[in-house]
Amino acid sequence: MPNLTLESLHTIIPEDVRRALAEDVGDGDITAALIPVDRQASATIITRESATLCGTAWADEVFRQIDPAIRVEWLAQDGDRIEANQTFCKLDGPARGLLTGERTALNFIQTLSATATSSRYYADLVEGTGVRLLDTRKTLPGLRMAQKYAVTCGGCDNHRIGLFDAFLIKENHIAACGGIDATITQARSLAPNKPIEVEVENLQELEEALKGGADIIMLDELSHEDMRTAVGLAAGTARLEASGGITEATLRSIAETGVDFISIGGMTKHVRAVDLSMRLSM
Amino acid sequence: MPNLTLESLHTIIPEDVRRALAEDVGDGDITAALIPVDRQASATIITRESATLCGTAWADEVFRQIDPAIRVEWLAQDGDRIEANQTFCKLDGPARGLLTGERTALNFIQTLSATATSSRYYADLVEGTGVRLLDTRKTLPGLRMAQKYAVTCGGCDNHRIGLFDAFLIKENHIAACGGIDATITQARSLAPNKPIEVEVENLQELEEALKGGADIIMLDELSHEDMRTAVGLAAGTARLEASGGITEATLRSIAETGVDFISIGGMTKHVRAVDLSMRLSM
Amino acid sequence: MPNLTLESLHTIIPEDVRRALAEDVGDGDITAALIPVDRQASATIITRESATLCGTAWADEVFRQIDPAIRVEWLAQDGDRIEANQTFCKLDGPARGLLTGERTALNFIQTLSATATSSRYYADLVEGTGVRLLDTRKTLPGLRMAQKYAVTCGGCDNHRIGLFDAFLIKENHIAACGGIDATITQARSLAPNKPIEVEVENLQELEEALKGGADIIMLDELSHEDMRTAVGLAAGTARLEASGGITEATLRSIAETGVDFISIGGMTKHVRAVDLSMRLSM
Amino acid sequence: MPNLTLESLHTIIPEDVRRALAEDVGDGDITAALIPVDRQASATIITRESATLCGTAWADEVFRQIDPAIRVEWLAQDGDRIEANQTFCKLDGPARGLLTGERTALNFIQTLSATATSSRYYADLVEGTGVRLLDTRKTLPGLRMAQKYAVTCGGCDNHRIGLFDAFLIKENHIAACGGIDATITQARSLAPNKPIEVEVENLQELEEALKGGADIIMLDELSHEDMRTAVGLAAGTARLEASGGITEATLRSIAETGVDFISIGGMTKHVRAVDLSMRLSM
Amino acid sequence: MPNLTLESLHTIIPEDVRRALAEDVGDGDITAALIPVDRQASATIITRESATLCGTAWADEVFRQIDPAIRVEWLAQDGDRIEANQTFCKLDGPARGLLTGERTALNFIQTLSATATSSRYYADLVEGTGVRLLDTRKTLPGLRMAQKYAVTCGGCDNHRIGLFDAFLIKENHIAACGGIDATITQARSLAPNKPIEVEVENLQELEEALKGGADIIMLDELSHEDMRTAVGLAAGTARLEASGGITEATLRSIAETGVDFISIGGMTKHVRAVDLSMRLSM
Amino acid sequence: MPNLTLESLHTIIPEDVRRALAEDVGDGDITAALIPVDRQASATIITRESATLCGTAWADEVFRQIDPAIRVEWLAQDGDRIEANQTFCKLDGPARGLLTGERTALNFIQTLSATATSSRYYADLVEGTGVRLLDTRKTLPGLRMAQKYAVTCGGCDNHRIGLFDAFLIKENHIAACGGIDATITQARSLAPNKPIEVEVENLQELEEALKGGADIIMLDELSHEDMRTAVGLAAGTARLEASGGITEATLRSIAETGVDFISIGGMTKHVRAVDLSMRLSM
Repeated sequence: MPNLTLESLHTIIPEDVRRALAEDVGDGDITAALIPVDRQASATIITRESATLCGTAWADEVFRQIDPAIRVEWLAQDGDRIEANQTFCKLDGPARGLLTGERTALNFIQTLSATATSSRYYADLVEGTGVRLLDTRKTLPGLRMAQKYAVTCGGCDNHRIGLFDAFLIKENHIAACGGIDATITQARSLAPNKPIEVEVENLQELEEALKGGADIIMLDELSHEDMRTAVGLAAGTARLEASGGITEATLRSIAETGVDFISIGGMTKHVRAVDLSMRLSM
Repeated sequence: MPNLTLESLHTIIPEDVRRALAEDVGDGDITAALIPVDRQASATIITRESATLCGTAWADEVFRQIDPAIRVEWLAQDGDRIEANQTFCKLDGPARGLLTGERTALNFIQTLSATATSSRYYADLVEGTGVRLLDTRKTLPGLRMAQKYAVTCGGCDNHRIGLFDAFLIKENHIAACGGIDATITQARSLAPNKPIEVEVENLQELEEALKGGADIIMLDELSHEDMRTAVGLAAGTARLEASGGITEATLRSIAETGVDFISIGGMTKHVRAVDLSMRLSM
Repeated sequence: MPNLTLESLHTIIPEDVRRALAEDVGDGDITAALIPVDRQASATIITRESATLCGTAWADEVFRQIDPAIRVEWLAQDGDRIEANQTFCKLDGPARGLLTGERTALNFIQTLSATATSSRYYADLVEGTGVRLLDTRKTLPGLRMAQKYAVTCGGCDNHRIGLFDAFLIKENHIAACGGIDATITQARSLAPNKPIEVEVENLQELEEALKGGADIIMLDELSHEDMRTAVGLAAGTARLEASGGITEATLRSIAETGVDFISIGGMTKHVRAVDLSMRLSM
Repeated sequence: MPNLTLESLHTIIPEDVRRALAEDVGDGDITAALIPVDRQASATIITRESATLCGTAWADEVFRQIDPAIRVEWLAQDGDRIEANQTFCKLDGPARGLLTGERTALNFIQTLSATATSSRYYADLVEGTGVRLLDTRKTLPGLRMAQKYAVTCGGCDNHRIGLFDAFLIKENHIAACGGIDATITQARSLAPNKPIEVEVENLQELEEALKGGADIIMLDELSHEDMRTAVGLAAGTARLEASGGITEATLRSIAETGVDFISIGGMTKHVRAVDLSMRLSM
Repeated sequence: MPNLTLESLHTIIPEDVRRALAEDVGDGDITAALIPVDRQASATIITRESATLCGTAWADEVFRQIDPAIRVEWLAQDGDRIEANQTFCKLDGPARGLLTGERTALNFIQTLSATATSSRYYADLVEGTGVRLLDTRKTLPGLRMAQKYAVTCGGCDNHRIGLFDAFLIKENHIAACGGIDATITQARSLAPNKPIEVEVENLQELEEALKGGADIIMLDELSHEDMRTAVGLAAGTARLEASGGITEATLRSIAETGVDFISIGGMTKHVRAVDLSMRLSM
Repeated sequence: MPNLTLESLHTIIPEDVRRALAEDVGDGDITAALIPVDRQASATIITRESATLCGTAWADEVFRQIDPAIRVEWLAQDGDRIEANQTFCKLDGPARGLLTGERTALNFIQTLSATATSSRYYADLVEGTGVRLLDTRKTLPGLRMAQKYAVTCGGCDNHRIGLFDAFLIKENHIAACGGIDATITQARSLAPNKPIEVEVENLQELEEALKGGADIIMLDELSHEDMRTAVGLAAGTARLEASGGITEATLRSIAETGVDFISIGGMTKHVRAVDLSMRLSM
């Protein structure tokens, strides 16, 4: 499950922006119509608090769709840390378009930078342990791909994108197929090239999943001690993912058990928008 | 600017859901394919923390699009307060469909209930003062309408939906048109039926806006004292909206200045997802 | 069932117009290509007969999508009465765009003004009686929302928008659920916040519907006398809607029975396009 | 400009229906949910007045999109005359789907049959004269293709579909290009395969258009006598189309002048919906 | 089954182009941004090998969507033979737009001209025999309509467009309905206006199909002798289509058996892109 | 420029299939309607010639959209070599759906396997040389992403996806910016994270591009000897791509010059559809 690249979003970004402009601009920005049509302006975007930047391609696309004559220059890139009061973007072009696009562009940056900043916060907590932190499918509806990209900008990694690109076998599937081993076998035959992850709740299930040949095993709320034992049992034949009941306080100690991955829903489901401001002069 | 009703979203909800299912399900839920196609199941959704519920229509639509044979029964409605561990939804039908829709349905409810809960929190802070709290255009891209509806479920009210349904005249527009009065006149002639709001930074500008006949006047970071003076000057001829630099600590005292509206960006731009869980038995 | 506002159509108008331009312009207006690309022109739109105007936002959007440099000024607003030979719109800008948009803009205005004019005609017939005239779901496919808005411009009101926003319980539903009372109970439990309307064909059914707690009761082709009796029986506990077999000749006498609503399919299903003309000089 | 065939609409019909169902059904038919999900029913559609039928493919598609298990049998075809109280369609299948689709299916049939009936009315007025009656671009926005097909069902013919498939050169184009001859030459070079029609207001312009090699010449409000002269002058080298100021009273006498075509806006811009009814038993 | 006209594609061409530009341009051509925004350029398109031209309307639309200020002049039309090194198109306008559209425009022309050239090749092989060569449903996914139009540019004809516009009855349908005669009867009643084609594998089945009243009979891999016999048996009451196992070597001799149609999958399923080049000077 | 993965296409595959089904099925498969609605069937797909398989996810999606009750089992995976007469797919489920989806599924497999097979052919020609073969932007309009994925199934690699994900600087850009060095500098400042490729026509330009810091240098039709010199000059500081005038005969000798990449337009612009057949029994 490789990380999403910006390039793979090239048809998604224009569509995300089209939708956001449709809801904000609708059939026209009536206030911008008060500005003469040929008035030029320049603007800067600053952040009022430190953050990890994300969303520059969405902001570019906002202005491209509104008026291709608007020029956008970035003084920082996705993934860069920006500090309070730092100017990280300069724009110039027709004043109407700058005003019409302002809020939509800021909404993308403040939301996606929130996710990148959260990702960076968690990544820093486990620095040096070698563990990889993963996002989950707990995302803002309609912004899954954008948020997963933001996660990579903050230094964490992507779990599966959705229900289509990996198996995540849980209790119900195992009951339906008749045991962990049978379930893995059936999964392998259904889609031979897809990673198979199995969720286990204790060490006995872990051993079955290992025997069945799971690619990844999700340790659901296991104790730290059991996690360490699991690492020994897996011995590199499957990768282990800790999940559930993880807090900032326990994150590092879990990382130190030696598991390969820790998945964190809060990284994408909560959003603390970064405080931004655009200043325009014309 | 009347509040958004659920009814006015009737073509938007199916579209919101289609998009969210496209990103999560893509070309198919491979794990659900391990469950026999005719297996039936029942499920409940509980909340792990108290919240104001919102998003039932989106969850209904998720399961309707996946399999119309799934029945969904709500034990609480949008706007209701739900308590920790309360079961607020029961479902039954084909097991595959329940599993495929689970995450997308929960993502809508946890996100929109977050907004409703935030709205309710602020509304409770000013209870009895008569002030009306408004949302802003600082929303999650692609979820503007859904979030604005959630705001109404929490007891706050909707400001303009976007750039098309009201004027919000700021410094730049005034400079371009040559004064507050001229700007209001031009706005009135451009779109006679649209509300005109003018942002002012001091009492002198307020008086000009009042004289010009603005419908609403936004008081941008005025002192409490100036706000009280503004209320006296307006004397009901225009409605006043406090905006900018408002914290939970100052909210009630601002409300008590007598302004008509206070707008709060944090209500929609930040999201603290409500902690939900779906339990399935088959 | 509140009336549709223009604001709630803000994503629908651009989509209505996109569709109409796609079918008319397709891959290009070949005749307009005979005009030099930088030729400017001005134009006026007049009506050749008196009418109630509707559709200005659609016409605005037509020209906005074709060329944002076209300026449109309205001398009358939606809902205004316009008289034969009255100029109600002035335009200027690139000649090509004015020619390309002419027919599509006129088609929207002539169709939606037809509905508004029809609505106004009926509204005038019952003036002073206090009855409210409602539209129905008998609309032009693809123009439901636009026509319902036009109805409000003419002084009548909106019934439910579609199948999703209110119950309309008829004979078949009652048979399936086992009686009026049982049907209302089931409806209430399915969707507690939706209005429940029950269609009755005689006074006995009316009494059952009243006892069951229906919000609105549709009187299907009842005699005037029965309607008057119904008004007495309902006594304000439910609202009454006369429907079926209503002609211009009987409309006012039905209104005088004291029913709350009369619904009229002909208002939206028939269209007598208003005769318009655009004159261009360059 | 050949007539539109039903086959060329094969991607348009599903789209027309998707849009109409979106606006009527939205996120679900709440009343149909009162009927048990497995209840079967049968239904008939009758007309309450005589008409020329059109729209069967749209009605088929409505029920196909709602539930492919619904069977639809037509007792009359597009273009057939149906008489008052005639049953022209039988349906059976799941009751919910029949109820949900009823109104949308009827709306398509009543609207498109209105156009076909109007077309048939005009066609009958000129029977035996050899003239061909054409529709115009004055259509219901979003239903251009459907209405043009309906016109062919009623016995009239299609003028150009839109701005892309033929030139229609008017006064403004001629002024911009410097004369009729120059305009035709330029049109021919821009798009050699597209028919060129020129609008003329007197016989002198007609002669220029003939000399320039126009394919069709539109006679705009010429007197009957001038039309007859025009027929002699054209002598088959260009086809002539009478247009403007045509009433039912003058239609046949214009036809008898010998012009090739008469175009009639009223055929598609006005709609007198056919009175239909669906009866369901379950 | 009449041939597709370019006119019937008027909403499809803009959609084909929108899709192609979305995948190539995505959120912007970064290299073109190195050219000054107001730089003008002119360009020519040449072919490096002889071919039958097709796709001019798609190329027009590419540049129209990118920048309406780009002028495109065609020195050859769809269906024309173009020779190696012939300049068949001249363009001028903003340099950025020319560069951005180059590849997408060429991709349409090289692909559709490939189909037209292949069609022309086959058409020439049977010249003078009176047989009509038909395409099949073996097309490039997403380009069905464009390729069917290209087939007509090369001198062959269109078989049915898809599954909706004609019956093609095969062994399985006959088995399900109980014989050829019963199948044709049922088809006729399902859709009275659609052509009915029946596939037969020997002369006995042919006789049944003739008796049943099939409109077209597909002779699946019959010997030349059987085909000649079939022509005698049909005697003009049904049209005959040879299909299957046809090579360039046998094509003409099959044509000479007297069958009405020969269908050739290779015409559309294989593509040998025509070698084109665009030269730009600025 | 990493290779496209199937996972990154998860919203594109359903859209590709929706489009292909729209054009083939339109408003319904009339022949399949002759089969009883509950008739079950099984089917196999075989290849009649050896090939490299590609397109299984598209075929899965075809049947998923038509009827989720259809089961599809693959006996070979994307990228596998399949031999003449090998059965590589088994299906069972409702007969109607199998018949309706047959052609569209086969069209995807035959087209994408053609590209994979072509890619495999070229890859085998250079086996052992260490060179990587790249595709180009010469693709079938609308199938860019699908074909690029097919290229990876055949063992070659992806060049940039489109105009958005890498710079490809040519003569015109260099002229506009004033030299290779200035162009690279400007590109770097416009989009610091995007790879920069420069096309050169001789060794002098190569040295400038190396000095400017290009990431990749495209050698446009250089002699073998110049290529070898170029490899020495680049010495690993930039990667070299041979392009233009490459034939099967010269491919291996070019590979042996030591260049890093060779790009081949023919891999995707030509299509020799693989000969497939589906056999159904019911």
